[in-house]
Amino acid sequence: MTITITAFERSPDGGKGLARDTRVRWALEEVRQPYEVRLVSFRAMKEPAHLALHPFGQIPTYEEGDLALFETGAIVFHIAQRHAGLLPDDANARARAITWMFAAVNTVEQPILERETARLLEGDKPWNKERMPLVEDRVRSRLNQLSARLGDADWLDGAFSAGDLMMVSVLLRLKSSGILDEYPNLAAYLTRGETRPAYKRAFAAQLAVNKPSTG
Amino acid sequence: MTITITAFERSPDGGKGLARDTRVRWALEEVRQPYEVRLVSFRAMKEPAHLALHPFGQIPTYEEGDLALFETGAIVFHIAQRHAGLLPDDANARARAITWMFAAVNTVEQPILERETARLLEGDKPWNKERMPLVEDRVRSRLNQLSARLGDADWLDGAFSAGDLMMVSVLLRLKSSGILDEYPNLAAYLTRGETRPAYKRAFAAQLAVNKPSTG
Repeated sequence: MTITITAFERSPDGGKGLARDTRVRWALEEVRQPYEVRLVSFRAMKEPAHLALHPFGQIPTYEEGDLALFETGAIVFHIAQRHAGLLPDDANARARAITWMFAAVNTVEQPILERETARLLEGDKPWNKERMPLVEDRVRSRLNQLSARLGDADWLDGAFSAGDLMMVSVLLRLKSSGILDEYPNLAAYLTRGETRPAYKRAFAAQLAVNKPSTG
Repeated sequence: MTITITAFERSPDGGKGLARDTRVRWALEEVRQPYEVRLVSFRAMKEPAHLALHPFGQIPTYEEGDLALFETGAIVFHIAQRHAGLLPDDANARARAITWMFAAVNTVEQPILERETARLLEGDKPWNKERMPLVEDRVRSRLNQLSARLGDADWLDGAFSAGDLMMVSVLLRLKSSGILDEYPNLAAYLTRGETRPAYKRAFAAQLAVNKPSTG
């Protein structure tokens, strides 16, 4: 059955790979499953047809035969569960990899998204300059702990897993911030993720949609 | 094998059930699995023995024989996958229930946690009064969408699932805010969750640890 995902018609990041379809593309590339993409405009994302697929009016969604899913973490998990390559076979190792998926989106991404909200939605507010260091210190609290746990390992728990895919994707949001420079092992972890052939294919595919117009 | 979870020696909420061990207790009660609880002080949570179990120095954790997990969503998923009662048998319905678990912690909890951060960590800042309405409107944006999707259904997708358990738990954080009064169907959804016998047992168990001292 054909897999169809949705992505921004034009990503707000201009092709830096931060839109969440990149995470799903990456997972599909890791397990070598072909997929089709339906591009959605900002207007169409808030209309009934898309809201029926995604109640929060976002991308990506995932359709395969009778199955329709939304929420990136759930889509990546679904892909990882159905196809070999993203979750270990051993039951305990598999549960730990899934733990890192939830840790990425609920514990580590939380303060990182707060930072983005502060920049994008409160950048013009009188408190922004004084508040931002507090927000960034909350990001650092999490990164300190993540860095301590990763140590000098390549990946969070044994071989590369869907947990790493999600964690690297979350950390990519900080790439232009300079904050990761304070954590050489996390910066190296990010680079390991970005240099995986599957990530490169996923990045190139989203860039082909979003590359700045030369017109 | 004995299941052992960790919980606060003394919860910051004084027994309102908002500490995340309540979510895990609730899941274990739904599937009728006995469990033991090891209480952890704030100091011990940041020490090496606990950090080895939970890299972010939080509760709850989950231990069962050789398996050690952290991160509430992952623990609830593990329980739901191993025991009947929290996930549908049908593969597509199961994938959709898991979708709601991720939606609860990544999409709906995000602005709700931002609101808590604003109250707890920035309540004394000069910008707090002017900023809070912006933060609460971001909560409302999500609740508008969630309310529209739930409609007049009892649960998010068919029978009660781990997705509802997580979503109700996230919405409980707003119980004292008054915001849920604006969404009668979400308030009723919350009440349906709270009146489940398994939730009541979980709530009572955490309250027994945290009830205000009469000494």
